[in-house]
Amino acid sequence: MVKKIEHIGIAVENIEQSLKIYEEILGSKCYKTEVVETEAVKTAFIAIGESKIELLEATSEESPIAQFLRKKGRGMHHIAFDVDNLENELERLLQLDYQLIHKTPKAGADNKLIAFLHPKSTDGVLIELCQDKI
Amino acid sequence: MVKKIEHIGIAVENIEQSLKIYEEILGSKCYKTEVVETEAVKTAFIAIGESKIELLEATSEESPIAQFLRKKGRGMHHIAFDVDNLENELERLLQLDYQLIHKTPKAGADNKLIAFLHPKSTDGVLIELCQDKI
Repeated sequence: MVKKIEHIGIAVENIEQSLKIYEEILGSKCYKTEVVETEAVKTAFIAIGESKIELLEATSEESPIAQFLRKKGRGMHHIAFDVDNLENELERLLQLDYQLIHKTPKAGADNKLIAFLHPKSTDGVLIELCQDKI
Repeated sequence: MVKKIEHIGIAVENIEQSLKIYEEILGSKCYKTEVVETEAVKTAFIAIGESKIELLEATSEESPIAQFLRKKGRGMHHIAFDVDNLENELERLLQLDYQLIHKTPKAGADNKLIAFLHPKSTDGVLIELCQDKI
């Protein structure tokens, strides 16, 4: 079951400058920054309601975020939905013929298990499903 | 005060085809469709947690959504935050030197008062603030 928007991932060029903007607009402070080495990204999280804004800065030219910035420019990169059972959801979507980037859960930022659906089968939008690590 | 993510606006080419995808992924049905003549868009809403997904299809070539699709392609178009007092928030952000597309609230879809901030001052992301009509 999909429960809520867990976060919106936003590709930025300079995470400190962007944090200032989102902290001012949302009136809320960043509660965590984290480098995800495997994705070559630096992340920063701001809570808003039951969801979060996740800012993403590339830490190398080969980072998926660097590629996104070159292709599309700054802006919203992905939307993440919180699910109760990630394995079940991946199996359900596979049976509905959705293309999955990850067929099994992998470790993500902010203590989550995550998997991405391929934008080819989700109307051009990069969708992440995630579940809290137990 | 900003309370939550009210919705994520997603630019699509065919709202019926896209609805099928989001209804399948989210396991939730569209609860409302609405044409906003002034913006030349057809909208469809799906609830998810305390937020919504708003699909946006252009109803004319001059629609902002048609322009977005030509420039950026399908994908996330804007993020909307729910605020308790839209006039106060616009005044607060003006004083912080944010550029506003709308300096005063205007009528939007789904029974809201809305105003957009200019992406130039929000790191390339189109941000909407909205408040329930009383």
